[in-house]
Parts: sequence; C-alpha cells; structure tokens
Amino acid sequence: MADEPRSQPFDSPLQLFNSIVSQGERVRSLKDKKAPKDEIDSAVKLLLSLKMSYKALVGEDYSPECPPGSLAPRGKSGPEDGEDFVDPWTVRTSSAKGIDYDKLIVQFGSSKIDKELINRIERATNQRPHRFLRRGIFFSHRDMNQVLDAYENKKPFYLYTGRGPSSEAMHVGHLIPFIFTKWLQDVFDVPLVVQMSDDEKYLWKDLTLEQAYGYTLENAKDIIACGFDINKTFIFSDLEYMGMSPGFYKNVVKIQKHVTFNQVKGIFGFTDSDCIGKISFPAVQAAPSFSNSFPQIFGDRADIQCLIPCAIDQDPYFRMTRDVAPRIGYPKPALLHSTFFPALQGAQTKMSASDPNSSIFLTDTAKQIKTKVNKHAFSGGRDTVEEHRQFGGNCDVDVSFMYLTFFLEDDDRLEQIRKDYTSGAMLTGELKKALIDVLQPLIAEHQARRKEVTDEMVKEFMTPRQLSFHFQ
Amino acid sequence: MADEPRSQPFDSPLQLFNSIVSQGERVRSLKDKKAPKDEIDSAVKLLLSLKMSYKALVGEDYSPECPPGSLAPRGKSGPEDGEDFVDPWTVRTSSAKGIDYDKLIVQFGSSKIDKELINRIERATNQRPHRFLRRGIFFSHRDMNQVLDAYENKKPFYLYTGRGPSSEAMHVGHLIPFIFTKWLQDVFDVPLVVQMSDDEKYLWKDLTLEQAYGYTLENAKDIIACGFDINKTFIFSDLEYMGMSPGFYKNVVKIQKHVTFNQVKGIFGFTDSDCIGKISFPAVQAAPSFSNSFPQIFGDRADIQCLIPCAIDQDPYFRMTRDVAPRIGYPKPALLHSTFFPALQGAQTKMSASDPNSSIFLTDTAKQIKTKVNKHAFSGGRDTVEEHRQFGGNCDVDVSFMYLTFFLEDDDRLEQIRKDYTSGAMLTGELKKALIDVLQPLIAEHQARRKEVTDEMVKEFMTPRQLSFHFQ
Repeated sequence: MADEPRSQPFDSPLQLFNSIVSQGERVRSLKDKKAPKDEIDSAVKLLLSLKMSYKALVGEDYSPECPPGSLAPRGKSGPEDGEDFVDPWTVRTSSAKGIDYDKLIVQFGSSKIDKELINRIERATNQRPHRFLRRGIFFSHRDMNQVLDAYENKKPFYLYTGRGPSSEAMHVGHLIPFIFTKWLQDVFDVPLVVQMSDDEKYLWKDLTLEQAYGYTLENAKDIIACGFDINKTFIFSDLEYMGMSPGFYKNVVKIQKHVTFNQVKGIFGFTDSDCIGKISFPAVQAAPSFSNSFPQIFGDRADIQCLIPCAIDQDPYFRMTRDVAPRIGYPKPALLHSTFFPALQGAQTKMSASDPNSSIFLTDTAKQIKTKVNKHAFSGGRDTVEEHRQFGGNCDVDVSFMYLTFFLEDDDRLEQIRKDYTSGAMLTGELKKALIDVLQPLIAEHQARRKEVTDEMVKEFMTPRQLSFHFQ
Repeated sequence: MADEPRSQPFDSPLQLFNSIVSQGERVRSLKDKKAPKDEIDSAVKLLLSLKMSYKALVGEDYSPECPPGSLAPRGKSGPEDGEDFVDPWTVRTSSAKGIDYDKLIVQFGSSKIDKELINRIERATNQRPHRFLRRGIFFSHRDMNQVLDAYENKKPFYLYTGRGPSSEAMHVGHLIPFIFTKWLQDVFDVPLVVQMSDDEKYLWKDLTLEQAYGYTLENAKDIIACGFDINKTFIFSDLEYMGMSPGFYKNVVKIQKHVTFNQVKGIFGFTDSDCIGKISFPAVQAAPSFSNSFPQIFGDRADIQCLIPCAIDQDPYFRMTRDVAPRIGYPKPALLHSTFFPALQGAQTKMSASDPNSSIFLTDTAKQIKTKVNKHAFSGGRDTVEEHRQFGGNCDVDVSFMYLTFFLEDDDRLEQIRKDYTSGAMLTGELKKALIDVLQPLIAEHQARRKEVTDEMVKEFMTPRQLSFHFQ
C-alpha cells in the first residue's frame, strides 16, 4: 500500500563506524583504569580489525569526523547533491525553491491535497478554505476523506497537534500548524489536544526537566494567543500529564509492545548508542492519536477518529502510528501536512530557533522586523534597478514573497504583487515593505494577545477536564 | 570497591557477532529484493570482513549457532557444561546442588553477607536475625553497611521490592522476598513500596493490559496476606501508578536519558528485534529506587536511601540503576540478594509458575501438598532402605531438606534432621513427612489470611498516600 511506513535500508557502514567509536572509547577507558595488559591488547586488536573492515567497505580510512552515509547521527548528516532529505530533525535541500513537495508525497506515500478535496472541505464546512489550503501550504494528507465522511455522518473526530518546547523564543514559522489548527477547530467545531513534548526535548537537548517544563509553560502562552477556544482545547505537558492520566501510559505501553528497535532504527535512524529514552519516545508522540489517551475528554471511547495537522517532517512518527493502530484495535489517525516555513536566508533550510537572524520571532519589535526583512530576507530581485525593471524578479526564490503567501490574506493583492514583481514593475524594496506592513501588525497583535494570557489561563488550558463540542 | 556496580566489560565479541547476524540478514534481504549488484557486493564484502574480524578476535570461525560468551541473546543461550547462567529471565545450572552462589558474587561484583554483617544487623535492630539471614538464603548484598550507618544515625531509608504478576497462581518460592521484606519492615520500622510490574508482563507475555492488571490485583492479595503493615506499605501497579504520580514518569525519563541501547543490550541481552517497550522497561524497574518517585510518601525528597530485597536474578536491573544514580544526582540503592527457591524436581532450575508440579502453590490443598512432596520432591536418599540406613542420604541435593531450610523456623530441629538424614537414621519418607508437616499449616494459614484480604484493603494498599514511619 502506498501509505505504508517506508522502511529505510539498514545502514551498515554507519553501524561499523559507530562500533569503531565505541571500541575506541573502550580502549581509552581500559587504559585510563589501567586494566590488565592482555585485556587492553585484545581491545586494541579488535579496534584495528574494525578499522580494516571499515576501509574495506567504505573505500577510505576511518575518520572520526566523517561518519558515512546519509543516516549519520543527526546534526552531522547532509543530503547528497540535488537530493532532498527530511526527517523530524533534519530538513535539507540544495534548491533555492525549497523541498520538492511533489516528490516528497511520492517518497512518503501520502496523498496530495487537490482541488477536489479542498472543494469538499468547503462544502462540508460551508466556509471559504483557509489560505493555507488555497495556496498549497497544507499540501499533503492521509485519510482526510475519511475524516470528512465521519463529519458528514455526524460522527465525532478530534484534532491533535503539538510542539517540542525547546526554547522560549518561538518564531512565526512555529505558528503555521497552530494558525491552521485553530481554523480547523472553528470550522469543524471539534476538540483539540496539544502535546508539549517536553520529555522529548529533555531527552534530545542539554536541558533539565525543570527547564523543559518551563519552556512548555512559556510556549503554551504563544499557542493560547493564537485564539484557541478554552472550552474545546486541552494543552498538556508529557512530563506532567503522564502522571495525571489513567489512559496515556497504557497506550504508550501498547504501542511500545508493537514496535521493534529495528523499526525505529529504520524510521528515525536511531543507533545503538542512542539512549533508551529516545528509542522509546516515538510511542509517546503516537499515543495522543488514540482517543482513550484522554479519558477526561472522551471517556473510555477508543474509536474516535483523530486528525493531525503538522509539518511534513513529523510524518515519520505518524507513519509508525498508522502501522501500529490496527494491530492494537484503534483507528489510524488522519493527517494534514504543511510545507516548511523558509528561513529568511532562503528555502534551502528549515528555520532554526537558535539563530536570531534566521527568522522573525514572536518577540521581535517592529523595528527588528523591518531590519531583519530588509537585511536578511533572501531576494529574488536583480542586481540593479535597471536590470530588475527590464527582466523582473523571481518570486519562486524570493523569501519575502514566500512569507507573503503565508501571511497576506488577500488573494488578489498577492497575485498583483506576484505579477508586478515578476514583471519588474515592483522593486525589491517595495516587496519587502509589503511584507513588513503585514508582519508588523501580525506580530504586534500576537504580542498583545499573549500579554493577556495569564498563568491561570495556562493552568486551565492544561487541566485535564471535559471539553464541550458539538457531537457530545 | 568490591560492591561497585560491576562495569560490565563492553561485550565486543557479542557485539561483533550481532553485527554479523544483522549483516547476514541485510545481504539476504538485498538479494531477495534484487538490489543493484554493486550494493549486494558491497554488503557481502562487509560481511566477509566482519567474519574475519570475528575470527581474529575470538580465535575461531563465526558460527550462527554459537554466540560468544555468557551474555548471548535470551532464548538462544544456554550455559556451557558446568557453567551457571543467571539473568532476569533464565537461571540454569548443571549442578543438582543448584547455582554456585559464591561464584555468582564474584561474577556480579556484589558482597557476601558474612557473619559480621549479620551480627551488625542484630545489634542495630536488637532482634534475632531472620532464618533467611542465619541460613544464607539472603547471601549477598550491595551497600548494606551504608543502610545500617544511616539507620544508626537516625537517618531514614525505605524498602522496595516487587513482583511481575504473570499469573494468578503464586508458589511458595514467590513468597521468599516478601517474607523477608516483612521482617525488615518490622525490625527497622520503615516504609515499603511494592512494584507490580504489570507493564513488564504485558510486554513480555501474550497478555492484554486488562489481564496483566487483573493478575496485579490477585497477586497483591497474596502479598498483603504476608502481613505487611497497611500504614507503612504502598503497593502499586505500574500501569495504574504511572498515571497517578507526579514523580514516577519524570524519574523514568531521567533514567532513560542516561542509559543507551548498547548498555541494555550488554546487561539484558536485548536484540534489535525486541520491542521498544522491553528496551526501555529497565528504567521503569529502576525508578522506584529513588524516593521522589513517591511524592505522596516522601514529598520532594530525592535523597532517601533505598534498600531492595530481591532474588539475585533481578540484580542486573539494579546494577544498571546504581550506575545511573550518581549521574542523575540520586543515592545508589542498596541491595540484599536471595538465592533461588528450587523446583521440586531439583535445584538445577528455577521454578515455573506454569508447571503445576514444579512447586507448591499458594492455592494447593493439604492433600495436594502431601502428594506433590511425596511424588515430585527430588530425593537425596538411597535406592533401598538398607543402603540408606548404611550410607545415609544427601541433604545437599535433597529438595525436601532444602525447602525445610526455607520454612522450618527451629534451627535445632533442622540441624537434627540434617544429621539424621545424612547418617541414615532418618528415611526419605520421614524427611518428606517433616516437610509436609511444615508446609500444610503454612499454606493453610496463608490461605486463611488471604481470605480476609478484601478488595477494599487492596484498594487502600494501592492508593498513593502518606505512610507513617518512625523517622517522620
């Protein structure tokens, strides 16, 4: 089946590489603790032998700085020239237009959100489709037609999205799934659960539990500021909710029983040197896809369909979830996938919360926004005004124009800008100004709404409780 | 230090062996799916190279049937002739006397419970040492002197033991840690937490979550019938308590961050085909060793010393726990290890709850006990009465005598039996009768106490709550 989980090839050179790293550590540790000579000798012998094997396989000497292949440990990996690479930790492409999303649909085995599906959503909700749908920003799905079948038959479904709270500062790109999820909540009138995977961030980053939970509380305020309905929305910290729910851990264990290390190795590229927390975490991200993880909301019902709006890089988690679901007697969650929000420097990379100039942050002032756009937004314009007037700009690579497709609501105005910039009638400075004029009020309004989010409101959103929604 | 967690030598031959197995699977899979020739060639090249490395290291050709060393994967392993093998799932010895426990102390790197330590416990508690101590049934420890230091300095400690509730029927051997733990609770006046690892049983066995939890409730009754003080004892189901405790999951994640798959592979023999639930479970068994897993009992104190009485086969979990503890800022748990309770058929094997004739069950009638002992208890007697009178019996291999060492309180009477049976003055039938006379009332009294354990009492024991104990 097209939407079965992709099984990645077993990465042998990398395994060998990791064995050499481990064995090197072992030799050093034996020497440090002045182990018996024969023990050290035998460890060294194995190390040399592994290095010979490595050279035989890879064709070059082992070098600790250069792990082999594309499944190298995260952060060290890079796609080969011309190839896109997407997993939950790495998104890379060499094209200034960004990832080739049509290829990704084929690669991931999902379905394209086509005109027909958008029309069906419009008919079902009797609402104009969100600009993210109209413009292909949410471009791919799994089983969305099933969700609409349920909805049209007055059967319940619920929304699930989430955030890994890795730092206090969120950027506008982080808002994409939340803006769209709020729209879905409004037009379908359904409950929403938002996972703050602070356990994940604790496991992957150099953070304490307290710091990770602190980021959860801060990020929750930005999420609430998107306008979610407190009567229909439950935001939860994994670290906190696992100890408050009679259903969550049970589902985690159920999923963990039905996924092997071989599988998560194939899907996520884990290695034997990864901690067992990372290895078992995918089950924690999977569990909220099943309604009985939230007994306070859904009682003991395990059959309520889940719809997950998320960026496409999160799909591997849910391919795994969909693979497990029927084996544990649960419905497969449906998905809506978004493209990536490009960095100011260009669409080749996903944005990074750790580089302040790579995006517009939700804490930026009007002046910072203006400076960043003018200084850092990659331009599709020509080198001189004369050339630009003559040949026109390139909207396909222009980051200011891309940002406008995300945030400028007016379709006609957007189309006019596209035409004018492409023809050369509009200059880069004017295009950037148009973006600044959209972003400044957007961020200012977000900041104003966030200011009104009190600690008490956060607490209420995060309290397990009944939610009200139309199918009750 | 002798009782440091043995840092297990990183098991390189086994790792290499496993790499060869994986690589062999990869070659077959590539051939199956008719992969490009150069891909297959390169995979074969690595396979051959790994086999050469193996021969260089181990000194003999790789053979798929013979994994190296004693840490071979479960299910495929067996002790070599004359070698004992102990892990949480397998206990094997070829000796009718059972496991060589002195060797095990050396192998595990624990310390022997010697006369001096027993005397110190007697002085500290002002109580006669339990027969399990007097008779070497609890024979090994880690850091027990540290616990006594704390106790003598009026510093708190707590007890932690547990059970994997795999079936409704418990046998007398299952009671050993509980009988001893109850004594420890009485003489030290300390709180006790009892983990029912129903999540573990769900992961390892063909059980539903509901069945595993059902066994928890049934087994809890037998545990309560051992006489634990309800004001000092908290019994918890992992499946239930994980969703009720603000501290448990946080400690599980902390531990999971500090243990790699390589480590659990080395300690427990997990393979890449094991589910991620098994791989991460050791952290769940480790977490109750830290007092802030129980905020309802200990508040936010993370520094209260834990003492774990358990059978020696559980030690691998706690070697891992002791390795992690200082890295996450917690005290290492201390341990008291018991020998195994022999099967009726002889001390070569651990008992099995699935073979009704392998032991005396807590549900057996007086008649069943009599029949089982007479029919199945392996005898150290001679073939004929004449020979027996002349040469005497062998208490070292006689299971009835072994059972008496566990359950007959009177030291003098036990010694008399040993002398008489060894000399031939006592016949096998008489020895068996002595055991039956001890077991019948023991089991009957247990059954009577168990009958009085109501569902409400179970519920109370299993409710997270404050406990009362002398150091409060």
